[in-house]
Amino acid sequence: MTTTYNSIKSLREALKPLRADKKIALVPTMGNLHQGHISLVKLAKQHADIVVVSIFVNPTQFGVGEDLDSYPRTLEADTEKLIEVEADYIFAPTVDEMYPIMPPPTQVLAGSISQMLCGKSRPTHFDGVGIVVTKLFNIVQPDVAIFGKKDYQQLAIIKQLVRDLSFDIQLIGGPIVRAEDGLALSSRNQYLTETERAAAPELHKAVQDLAVKLQSGRATSETALQSLIEESITAINAKGFKVDYLEVRNQDLTPITEFAGKQSWVIAVAAWLGKARLLDNQEVDI
Amino acid sequence: MTTTYNSIKSLREALKPLRADKKIALVPTMGNLHQGHISLVKLAKQHADIVVVSIFVNPTQFGVGEDLDSYPRTLEADTEKLIEVEADYIFAPTVDEMYPIMPPPTQVLAGSISQMLCGKSRPTHFDGVGIVVTKLFNIVQPDVAIFGKKDYQQLAIIKQLVRDLSFDIQLIGGPIVRAEDGLALSSRNQYLTETERAAAPELHKAVQDLAVKLQSGRATSETALQSLIEESITAINAKGFKVDYLEVRNQDLTPITEFAGKQSWVIAVAAWLGKARLLDNQEVDI
Repeated sequence: MTTTYNSIKSLREALKPLRADKKIALVPTMGNLHQGHISLVKLAKQHADIVVVSIFVNPTQFGVGEDLDSYPRTLEADTEKLIEVEADYIFAPTVDEMYPIMPPPTQVLAGSISQMLCGKSRPTHFDGVGIVVTKLFNIVQPDVAIFGKKDYQQLAIIKQLVRDLSFDIQLIGGPIVRAEDGLALSSRNQYLTETERAAAPELHKAVQDLAVKLQSGRATSETALQSLIEESITAINAKGFKVDYLEVRNQDLTPITEFAGKQSWVIAVAAWLGKARLLDNQEVDI
Repeated sequence: MTTTYNSIKSLREALKPLRADKKIALVPTMGNLHQGHISLVKLAKQHADIVVVSIFVNPTQFGVGEDLDSYPRTLEADTEKLIEVEADYIFAPTVDEMYPIMPPPTQVLAGSISQMLCGKSRPTHFDGVGIVVTKLFNIVQPDVAIFGKKDYQQLAIIKQLVRDLSFDIQLIGGPIVRAEDGLALSSRNQYLTETERAAAPELHKAVQDLAVKLQSGRATSETALQSLIEESITAINAKGFKVDYLEVRNQDLTPITEFAGKQSWVIAVAAWLGKARLLDNQEVDI
């Protein structure tokens, strides 16, 4: 049975008697669920007895002029999908329930990791992620929390948050789920016109091409890497995108300083296609 | 029995089986326990089945040039006092255990409430309080947390933290404990010479004098209040103190804007006496 709660108090009361002998997983979402989210719920069920899915379009993580108002809200359809996949609890609070005082005076900031990549063009985005994830962790007090790897930087920031604030929570990153043509699933894909949607998989293809070049050992130095990145950006822009950033970093998002020996890198990209800002990434182990 | 743990993991393991049917209280301290702390432990025992006292001189709440190195560390004597008062668990972690990366990149900031009063002369102090209290809350996951009212601003900031970050914790403020001559107990009283110690109760006396004036309705306006405050500062400085601040505010520390009708105010003062920076405060209900 899937039960929906809108209040913090009622969710806590429902979870309280379960804590002693059940493992609880949290899957935080902004709703408008697609197969990417559903895969996270399935992953959660493998790691826990009880799965809580939060659905909350969090205003504090949207910047001025961003798509807070137009972000798709589809609670009824989301609920049907979560019933089908047998999630136990849906937590769908109002903005007032989450933020009785808005903006909340207390802030949870991630430091330099939140200023790079997506943080450059969305300077307050991860501040909003920090507070909402902290609140959801404190409301649900889960044993396990599942986040998608599509939001790679978000996952890295939450790893840091769990370590720095001593949350007793196991974090699990769920793999990116893609359409058949390779486009990473995202609620924001809905902003694409038909023509843009047809071109969108080129982003993933370009990242794959770059991954192949890195795996073949062509990034022998900072300069060589930078030149490969620039080739890749040019190729993506030529397909009608406007690249916001494309970077290759260590998987904890620190800059690469070692080019020899075994390396665990990640290619991270954000690019505009029409009204949609698309994210993609790929881990590359060399 | 009083058991001491130095590691987060071992404390969590000890508390885990108790959570289902015991109420857990946390009393956070920096050690060097005096009767003020002991009164908080006794209060905790009235509100919970299990009392955890943390002893941690938190480096992130000391500014550059402050007394981090000289702050008294007396774990053995503290332990004896806590055995006597039948605390259940002492959590005494090392700095490395609390901060594997120092300073931690993640920050918990309280906003404008942390910039006033003590925050003016100790601009990073409450940032350190924010992160360490968040960590202790996540480590212990208490039902109740007890803080002394002597650190009035700290308590107000933690109230805000609990609300804004959705901690499921009941906060209780313990009354100030005073020496027979009226001086509020504090570990920093040890920094006073014999002569200074004899003069120290004058701070409390001046606050009491001001409270009497407020209660008799003499603060009829912003100007009248300011003039009473200035009288009081002059009186305190005349006794050999150097007042850092003396302010009268609403009890949530917002500035007073209403002077008529029923009011709940607090007098808050910090003053240097030799090497010691002494705090005191008094709630005034009019």
